[in-house]
Amino acid sequence: MSNTPVSKETGWYLSGYTDGEGSFCVSFSPRSKLRNKLEVRPSFSISQNKDRSEVLFLFKQIFDCGSIRPDRSDQTFKYEVRSLEDLLLKIIPFFKRFPLKSSKNKDFLLFSEICQIMNNKNIPNYLEKIIKLAFQMNPSGKRKYNKKYLLSFFKIKV
Amino acid sequence: MSNTPVSKETGWYLSGYTDGEGSFCVSFSPRSKLRNKLEVRPSFSISQNKDRSEVLFLFKQIFDCGSIRPDRSDQTFKYEVRSLEDLLLKIIPFFKRFPLKSSKNKDFLLFSEICQIMNNKNIPNYLEKIIKLAFQMNPSGKRKYNKKYLLSFFKIKV
Repeated sequence: MSNTPVSKETGWYLSGYTDGEGSFCVSFSPRSKLRNKLEVRPSFSISQNKDRSEVLFLFKQIFDCGSIRPDRSDQTFKYEVRSLEDLLLKIIPFFKRFPLKSSKNKDFLLFSEICQIMNNKNIPNYLEKIIKLAFQMNPSGKRKYNKKYLLSFFKIKV
Repeated sequence: MSNTPVSKETGWYLSGYTDGEGSFCVSFSPRSKLRNKLEVRPSFSISQNKDRSEVLFLFKQIFDCGSIRPDRSDQTFKYEVRSLEDLLLKIIPFFKRFPLKSSKNKDFLLFSEICQIMNNKNIPNYLEKIIKLAFQMNPSGKRKYNKKYLLSFFKIKV
């Protein structure tokens, strides 16, 4: 967050907005050149119709990180934070101070745990732990790769 | 609203949530049996996936009015307030105290004006005024009847 403390008004408003429209997501991509063969990408994002995108700029201003870009798939704009450092130092502390009130908060807590693990790669089997936690998130969402396939990178029984 | 005053935390959270997911809408239906031949139906509604519908129950509890029902068209639940009295005494005062921060607030202000006019039918040409205000709302939304058709009920040039 920027140096100015966030007011309760703005904090709870952005928390409510996020509970409706925001998304905490951890995606995986096989990458043969990486030592672990798997890239892990955590992100926080919010989409909104182009003609109501003012709030996305408010998010960017308050969080003092991330970027806004048109979504290729439709007439929306997307605010997104992908930097692990920004997620750990700005996004996660914000949603601990102003927690979501729906079951999306469970996703946030798993997301937070994954980001902490990514920040401490000395944890044994950290990638396996991340995969297992990520598959507890957003149960109604779709994933490109299934859990069995991702864990097969480490030859672990599901 | 219920007798307990809404806390700032809950108020701004629900305002943010509404800015993302809520809708202020005024719809029209030709009704040959009505004196004015046209029924005007203002409503405030919020939809959410069934598995994240907790916040809809929070809205219902805080606003102390409206109803929650499954939406026939998809796997969502809808919280809706249609009573003009509840809109005037509960919903509108809430969003004046905790205003939306996006351009959706313009829709809310038009919606509020329409509800005030509906409550004071002594205003000359009140139905025409309502139609003209309603067509300034939600410009990206779709309408069953166009403005020209609705105003034709009163033989007024657009």
